[in-house]
Amino acid sequence: MTSSGGMPAYRITAWLRPPHLVEAPVPMPGPGEVLVAVAANGLCHSDLTMSQIPGEIGDLIGWRVPFTLGHEIAGTIVEAGPDAADAPAVGTAVALVSPTSCGRCAYCLAGRDSACPNGLAGRGYGRDGGLAPYVVAPVRALIPLNGLDPVAAAPLTDAGATSYHAVRRVLPVLEPGSTAVVLGAGGLGGFAIQHLKACSPARVVAVDVSPARLATAAELGADETLPGVGDDPGATTGALRELTGGDGAAAVLDFVGTDTTITAGIGAVRPCGAFGLVGSAGGRLRAGWYGGLPREAEVFTFQGSTIADAHAVVALAAAGRIRSLVEVFTLDQVADAYRALDEATLRGRAVVTP
Amino acid sequence: MTSSGGMPAYRITAWLRPPHLVEAPVPMPGPGEVLVAVAANGLCHSDLTMSQIPGEIGDLIGWRVPFTLGHEIAGTIVEAGPDAADAPAVGTAVALVSPTSCGRCAYCLAGRDSACPNGLAGRGYGRDGGLAPYVVAPVRALIPLNGLDPVAAAPLTDAGATSYHAVRRVLPVLEPGSTAVVLGAGGLGGFAIQHLKACSPARVVAVDVSPARLATAAELGADETLPGVGDDPGATTGALRELTGGDGAAAVLDFVGTDTTITAGIGAVRPCGAFGLVGSAGGRLRAGWYGGLPREAEVFTFQGSTIADAHAVVALAAAGRIRSLVEVFTLDQVADAYRALDEATLRGRAVVTP
Amino acid sequence: MTSSGGMPAYRITAWLRPPHLVEAPVPMPGPGEVLVAVAANGLCHSDLTMSQIPGEIGDLIGWRVPFTLGHEIAGTIVEAGPDAADAPAVGTAVALVSPTSCGRCAYCLAGRDSACPNGLAGRGYGRDGGLAPYVVAPVRALIPLNGLDPVAAAPLTDAGATSYHAVRRVLPVLEPGSTAVVLGAGGLGGFAIQHLKACSPARVVAVDVSPARLATAAELGADETLPGVGDDPGATTGALRELTGGDGAAAVLDFVGTDTTITAGIGAVRPCGAFGLVGSAGGRLRAGWYGGLPREAEVFTFQGSTIADAHAVVALAAAGRIRSLVEVFTLDQVADAYRALDEATLRGRAVVTP
Amino acid sequence: MTSSGGMPAYRITAWLRPPHLVEAPVPMPGPGEVLVAVAANGLCHSDLTMSQIPGEIGDLIGWRVPFTLGHEIAGTIVEAGPDAADAPAVGTAVALVSPTSCGRCAYCLAGRDSACPNGLAGRGYGRDGGLAPYVVAPVRALIPLNGLDPVAAAPLTDAGATSYHAVRRVLPVLEPGSTAVVLGAGGLGGFAIQHLKACSPARVVAVDVSPARLATAAELGADETLPGVGDDPGATTGALRELTGGDGAAAVLDFVGTDTTITAGIGAVRPCGAFGLVGSAGGRLRAGWYGGLPREAEVFTFQGSTIADAHAVVALAAAGRIRSLVEVFTLDQVADAYRALDEATLRGRAVVTP
Repeated sequence: MTSSGGMPAYRITAWLRPPHLVEAPVPMPGPGEVLVAVAANGLCHSDLTMSQIPGEIGDLIGWRVPFTLGHEIAGTIVEAGPDAADAPAVGTAVALVSPTSCGRCAYCLAGRDSACPNGLAGRGYGRDGGLAPYVVAPVRALIPLNGLDPVAAAPLTDAGATSYHAVRRVLPVLEPGSTAVVLGAGGLGGFAIQHLKACSPARVVAVDVSPARLATAAELGADETLPGVGDDPGATTGALRELTGGDGAAAVLDFVGTDTTITAGIGAVRPCGAFGLVGSAGGRLRAGWYGGLPREAEVFTFQGSTIADAHAVVALAAAGRIRSLVEVFTLDQVADAYRALDEATLRGRAVVTP
Repeated sequence: MTSSGGMPAYRITAWLRPPHLVEAPVPMPGPGEVLVAVAANGLCHSDLTMSQIPGEIGDLIGWRVPFTLGHEIAGTIVEAGPDAADAPAVGTAVALVSPTSCGRCAYCLAGRDSACPNGLAGRGYGRDGGLAPYVVAPVRALIPLNGLDPVAAAPLTDAGATSYHAVRRVLPVLEPGSTAVVLGAGGLGGFAIQHLKACSPARVVAVDVSPARLATAAELGADETLPGVGDDPGATTGALRELTGGDGAAAVLDFVGTDTTITAGIGAVRPCGAFGLVGSAGGRLRAGWYGGLPREAEVFTFQGSTIADAHAVVALAAAGRIRSLVEVFTLDQVADAYRALDEATLRGRAVVTP
Repeated sequence: MTSSGGMPAYRITAWLRPPHLVEAPVPMPGPGEVLVAVAANGLCHSDLTMSQIPGEIGDLIGWRVPFTLGHEIAGTIVEAGPDAADAPAVGTAVALVSPTSCGRCAYCLAGRDSACPNGLAGRGYGRDGGLAPYVVAPVRALIPLNGLDPVAAAPLTDAGATSYHAVRRVLPVLEPGSTAVVLGAGGLGGFAIQHLKACSPARVVAVDVSPARLATAAELGADETLPGVGDDPGATTGALRELTGGDGAAAVLDFVGTDTTITAGIGAVRPCGAFGLVGSAGGRLRAGWYGGLPREAEVFTFQGSTIADAHAVVALAAAGRIRSLVEVFTLDQVADAYRALDEATLRGRAVVTP
Repeated sequence: MTSSGGMPAYRITAWLRPPHLVEAPVPMPGPGEVLVAVAANGLCHSDLTMSQIPGEIGDLIGWRVPFTLGHEIAGTIVEAGPDAADAPAVGTAVALVSPTSCGRCAYCLAGRDSACPNGLAGRGYGRDGGLAPYVVAPVRALIPLNGLDPVAAAPLTDAGATSYHAVRRVLPVLEPGSTAVVLGAGGLGGFAIQHLKACSPARVVAVDVSPARLATAAELGADETLPGVGDDPGATTGALRELTGGDGAAAVLDFVGTDTTITAGIGAVRPCGAFGLVGSAGGRLRAGWYGGLPREAEVFTFQGSTIADAHAVVALAAAGRIRSLVEVFTLDQVADAYRALDEATLRGRAVVTP
């Protein structure tokens, strides 16, 4: 095929303007890149906020308009650019690593590329993403699917990998007999429940205000479900302590991140345990840290995931150890899909098949 | 009850003499100890060798004759000695930690009590063990069973905990998509297969010369089984590399320990992987180490397990994540049980119920 | 010698009453214990608060009055109790581990005895401590001095070991070229500076409001000193970022623990770094955690130290890698010494030689 | 300047032929590469063997003739190729990472690039290296010198980084009071002694058959020196055990790698310690592994170093914590320098300044 001509693309065409479907050029793979025919692109809450970024901020972080949305991408390699001899063969089905990283800074060189300071712009955030029939990607971002369905794979690259990043970090404390708590059993939390069951012997407790999400959590493998966190974080802490014989949980992962979830979760961590904050709601602990934070425990937060995380979740899914709950939309339906995402009426992750 | 009177006990009564059933006094719990009514005692290959130890060696390592055999013990607390206020209540069902350690040396203080140099003598090896209706144990050695069947629990304390010790050490390299190999799928190997499946996302490959043991391995959860290791270690290495797409296994645990298993196993470890030697057959690698050992990998060996390991396996069993294959004998049948153990005609672990 | 007769002891004799020098019986070593002739006892800020504990709280945590103050103890073994055959010989100079722990709980068994829930009462806090000519201690608490001066050793057991506990935890992030920051260069901070220099290649920056303490910090090995943290935590954060070329520090240890030190310190930690809170001033971060906490970093707090920590600092001092700044008082001068401690007029740690 | 014209280069021009000085073209930096004016190039024993590689092997591992020798390089950036906007500015003094790695495989992505399977050919081994006035290198390989002398920096990139790779791995076991042993106090061993002193509180013992090298070891910071390993490895083991009060060393790094050094070193490692094999002499342990390898310890071997290691040693040298012992030669003297290297008449590392 020839990488030219036009294609439809769901794009932000100007700062502070809503995205819409427009005609865009089919991209050409540069040095070390391949052209991928997009088979599936997962939608993410963060997409909804991108059109609200002021131009000065966008410029500051190096984003360029117009750009095509979509950063959870799976598809098939259709062409290799120059200097990409080490890419998988044309025809190989691949998922695309969602975060961008430079591969050269101290963080990347240590395998901690989720802390790379040079990854502010990437496919679907300031550069052309996956809500179009074609996208380009560097060889370093390609993960062979080994038979995994691209529709299932797409949401793994961000939602699946980010939740795995949190789970991986707490695995050392999840000894037999221990308990792991997932606060917020939505998209990322649902993946976290599965990762925990696949990778550790811990008992998994899911906490959510939504009975429907708790039911899904149980289907995904949660050993216990608990309504919460309501207005009284102490009540959730108390319930979690009771569930753990008074000891507390070895790990609490908070996919919400309000004052109440943080306070409830921190209170439920046992000494030498771990609290991981994934949710971006902006909350903090309602107590002084000395005495308030669990003794000898680890508190951490982060954004995104590493390339290794993405490989790991694709491997878990290919082995049948985790699965993606998805609702499929066509590219024509993308606005509807975002609306459903915004209104939280979806049970699974929205995936668009361009 | 009163801790006096006599009881039958299967004992070594003199150096270099076979053990036999004799009358022995019911022991009295000392300070910080409890008296345990033995419900089950697992038999171990090492028991078979104890009567062959010369007296000078026995003296050297601080063993005393007579002593009752049996170091895989579960039962019920029937009496607390002085200064044992922190023991679980009388009536509590417990397993007894099998290895002895001092709790005061640098290794014990670091949680590495399997390396304690002060644990050469213990229950069933130089001191009175579990092949009798009663045994004493310090509070530090008690693991509440929380409903677990003592017959299932007894073999966990040594066979289960030792194999877990090896598995626990390699967990950090067992990422999603990785492979773990168990060489020798007998008692310890069978536990290792289960621990690996319960605690990691790795694919587990069991290797054994016995088709019967491979069938058991598959029942216990092995994802793949492979006949071997035969005379040609390279053949097994080749087969394992083929099973792993040429990459090699992230971890190989060798429960045999001959030249051939070590050479086959080392050859199958991928860079940055791990090789753990558990089997005591006395073999070594048939190659120079530089170039012969896998690059950046870890090679380790050890004996026994930590108290924390024993707690962990009891927790895994109590949660239904692992199970003990056992064949039950009465105390009268103990000689028959050892004979069956020696002749390798048992499918599970021999457990005596005194 | 015979463990009887009377001796002077600086004691809390009733709840909510100031401590004073009284006559007390010479203690007798119980099973597994030794009697130690106290050569030196370091004074600690926490001693000042003990007489203010209401009786109900004291009872709740298992403290008993009267008890002799003093939990930083070094001396000479003068007698072994029953069942203490594994103690060092009579005449051996030893330091006594300051925190109490049970040796049997999951934390102790994992070498994490600073998280032991069973150590609320101990020598100098609810039991008889070192402000007297004699004290008893279990074998597990004895650390041979190997020629180290007991006056130098005493403050190591708490102030030295607690600061080492923090330093040890952050060593993995202190790679060559990295920076470690010590907020608060008093007693514990001064030890931390020395531990960091002895155990890591990191550049060490000391921050304190007191020019005198900064001068001491420089003498103890700090590579840079910085006045602060004042009212504007952002100024300190900015200065630390400037000192680190904009990257931030790999580790910040906060020995103060106010809102301003925590906020300044957290802001100065680089991604994947660590923030350790040692100071008990009760502060917290003045920002939401997501975005406010450093990405991929570790935040932790704790109380006390492990037995292994105490052994480590004694080894560092015996090797001449760290030293104790002390001011020596007799037992008669103990009230004066506490007054000087309370008024912060001491340059070094107050040590009483009974 | 213009990247054209000719320059002298010390090259292997045909398989199985000795290298010699020839005229070669000045290279042009490709995409993502820079041109470096070579200020210093360290010579390595491995250079001596490269001319003995049969052509079929050379082809197999992807080496091309002719190529310029030299893989320990420091110099100044003189020109940036296309697509190298993120390179340091022209004029920046840099060291060049010595090993090659792909940046895309699972090992590279985990920060374990010394295990990268795609780095068999590189600057000075199958591609043009540093024994010429100019060389090209990708941005990922550039390490700013920050004022460090290029002559001191060059040997850091391989000899310094490889020894650091071994030291870094054993740091976790080098607690206060522990002992680290360096077997073979030549070029790499000399660096290891310095790294150990700079990065750990361990006492360092150097072992070598050469009194001159032991004297140098003491100058570089070794706390103890010991003649050996002679024909009787047990004698060295015994001496090391005596030096450690019977306990054994926490870590032994073997820069020789014969049967005798491996056997002596393994015997001297304490339980839970580490043995790192760096020397390529092809030896192995003269004993069965079970019982022969230290209990609970880690045995490892590797080749080369990571990019992060190279950054670390440059940082150590820039901070004055380690230094390079060098003897400087001009490009005209390169054959003499290699002869001296082969005959082991050099005290320091031979560095050529083209």
